[in-house]
Amino acid sequence: MSFITLMTDFGLKDGNVGVMKGVIWKFAPHAQIADLSHNIGPQNISEAALVLSRHALYFPAGSIHVVVVDPGVGTARRPIAARLDEHFFVLPDNGILTLLLERAGQEHWPVEIVQLDKPQYWLSEVSHVFHGRDIFAPTAGHLASGVPLHALGAPIDDPVRLKLPRPQRTPTGLRGEVIHVDHFGNISTNIRREHLEQVSRVTVSLCGVIIQGLVQTFGERPAGDLVALYGSTGNLIVSEVNGNAAQCLGARPGDPVELILDG
Amino acid sequence: MSFITLMTDFGLKDGNVGVMKGVIWKFAPHAQIADLSHNIGPQNISEAALVLSRHALYFPAGSIHVVVVDPGVGTARRPIAARLDEHFFVLPDNGILTLLLERAGQEHWPVEIVQLDKPQYWLSEVSHVFHGRDIFAPTAGHLASGVPLHALGAPIDDPVRLKLPRPQRTPTGLRGEVIHVDHFGNISTNIRREHLEQVSRVTVSLCGVIIQGLVQTFGERPAGDLVALYGSTGNLIVSEVNGNAAQCLGARPGDPVELILDG
Amino acid sequence: MSFITLMTDFGLKDGNVGVMKGVIWKFAPHAQIADLSHNIGPQNISEAALVLSRHALYFPAGSIHVVVVDPGVGTARRPIAARLDEHFFVLPDNGILTLLLERAGQEHWPVEIVQLDKPQYWLSEVSHVFHGRDIFAPTAGHLASGVPLHALGAPIDDPVRLKLPRPQRTPTGLRGEVIHVDHFGNISTNIRREHLEQVSRVTVSLCGVIIQGLVQTFGERPAGDLVALYGSTGNLIVSEVNGNAAQCLGARPGDPVELILDG
Repeated sequence: MSFITLMTDFGLKDGNVGVMKGVIWKFAPHAQIADLSHNIGPQNISEAALVLSRHALYFPAGSIHVVVVDPGVGTARRPIAARLDEHFFVLPDNGILTLLLERAGQEHWPVEIVQLDKPQYWLSEVSHVFHGRDIFAPTAGHLASGVPLHALGAPIDDPVRLKLPRPQRTPTGLRGEVIHVDHFGNISTNIRREHLEQVSRVTVSLCGVIIQGLVQTFGERPAGDLVALYGSTGNLIVSEVNGNAAQCLGARPGDPVELILDG
Repeated sequence: MSFITLMTDFGLKDGNVGVMKGVIWKFAPHAQIADLSHNIGPQNISEAALVLSRHALYFPAGSIHVVVVDPGVGTARRPIAARLDEHFFVLPDNGILTLLLERAGQEHWPVEIVQLDKPQYWLSEVSHVFHGRDIFAPTAGHLASGVPLHALGAPIDDPVRLKLPRPQRTPTGLRGEVIHVDHFGNISTNIRREHLEQVSRVTVSLCGVIIQGLVQTFGERPAGDLVALYGSTGNLIVSEVNGNAAQCLGARPGDPVELILDG
Repeated sequence: MSFITLMTDFGLKDGNVGVMKGVIWKFAPHAQIADLSHNIGPQNISEAALVLSRHALYFPAGSIHVVVVDPGVGTARRPIAARLDEHFFVLPDNGILTLLLERAGQEHWPVEIVQLDKPQYWLSEVSHVFHGRDIFAPTAGHLASGVPLHALGAPIDDPVRLKLPRPQRTPTGLRGEVIHVDHFGNISTNIRREHLEQVSRVTVSLCGVIIQGLVQTFGERPAGDLVALYGSTGNLIVSEVNGNAAQCLGARPGDPVELILDG
């Protein structure tokens, strides 16, 4: 059994996601395919990097993750496939793997990356504007059907990496920024649980409001309260209980977050 | 072959639905998974109850229906799994099963409910904010892979039930309310075919308009006409032919509907 | 292995797509099902025809494509099933097959069409408003499980065909129209690569702007530039590099497009 995930910025109305499944099944009829998200902001590579890094490793070992957020389609940007530990990735070389490559470095995972340069593993006609269908989907299908990674192209060791914002120490604590707003309006920051170890008291300041202390879960406070807590992937988030914090505060990716810490 | 359905209020942009599929496949690699809806209104338990009751039983016997609309995540609300006749349900104990439990009572189906209290069937780390991924998806995976329901936790017999609005008799007919507005703007009410048996003439009054009589299907009247008819699940609905009745009338769940009946 | 695609105008919030999968799996438990689009405009038959014709044939031979965009549900319009070469289609007879039937004619594919008139292949109760669940899904399930097309109903040879807009010659070139706007705001026209063979210079005029020449792909020009190029299915499209051309120009299906050609 092979598992393939798809993530794109295509939206769901035009059929461009569905057609990729058709192409995959031509080469790997038994593949189980799951959509991760097709509502990544148009050309938003950092959002794709973040969403991918949060979810991919929950899939079974051997899964193949296809990501098509591809502003450089048809230009010289390289199409690549990679193996990080036990997961495979098929995508344009534009930085979407940055966070997972960092983690691979920290955890000493084996990493293997190839540039897709063997047209025999693509559709016979390749358009200039839809490599998701014509290059990435057939490549994933071939991988799922047993073609080894190294057969798909020449090895490379210089994948593009994004320069992602890091939290900075300040005299009284940390300065970070908003990196994601989810469907519920939960505001995710780039400050993580690891940054706050051995800290006894936290004050969060964001979009002009101040939140004292962290809670463990939403239900500890009444509906309408703003709370700060750790989200399901270990990032500090700000939420409105049963409400929409991002709407309430007008928060957007890139907005600064200040933490005052008492150790 | 195991079939699993997923219903949440997560939306489709953040990858939180996809990751649940990854977790399910870790435990049940052959499971076929279908999305029922991920656009349930945030924390809207009654909408989830309604949508689930309309569709679940059309799936093959033995299907497992996972619902994560869960404002109480991380609090004392119980995670549960249930069997109603030949269908399984995995969800928080917050009333989402109400309509199906009512039907089970009417039809004398066997019912078995357990509180999920065996962490060996969950992910090894359980966050306080995402039990869909950490408790409900692995539980569904284990069920699909053959773990019996009674192994997942201690039996309970007091699941939470919602108090849902019932139509009331009036001197001239019935008073009900709007319970759902669908993608087309069809307005669904809590008045059902059973309530109108042996009635020869119906007048429907809703949002200031009056509709005389029922039709069988949309195409009986010209585009733009407002019509009343039975929807595909036996509820009385009000529609605009090839248009959007809810938008046209400004109708929303909770709005009153009056019926004048001539027997 | 059987492959089934679903396309509807149902949207994704009400569970009406999911329930069709449940019904299909009752008859064809091994079917792999892919969503093509469920955000076709309400009752927009020409949009459904276009999206279907772009994607269906990328699926494996033997695939079954179910389309439910069905303003005539419950009226005398015929439910049909068809085979065009190696692909099957199950849908209302309202013109959605038009473009594929044209291509079948050009390429001399075998074509076989039946009117679905055998209720033993439907659900036992058929509502007047949801043939997707009650007729089309079970029919697709039976086809996928091996029932031959000719068993499903009597042959017909007069399927409904849409009158689709064709580009017209003008003294200086061609006049066409906008036929689709995609998620990115790319504006697709009914002018195709074939219309422009042996032409050395093209000027495109649309919504009051003039674009000189065609590019091969988006990345040839800086972000914000308007460009004209061939889309992934061979139609002439107008795009804004990393932007939304349709929003920028206010373009909508039906808007005229003028081409000045130098041969």
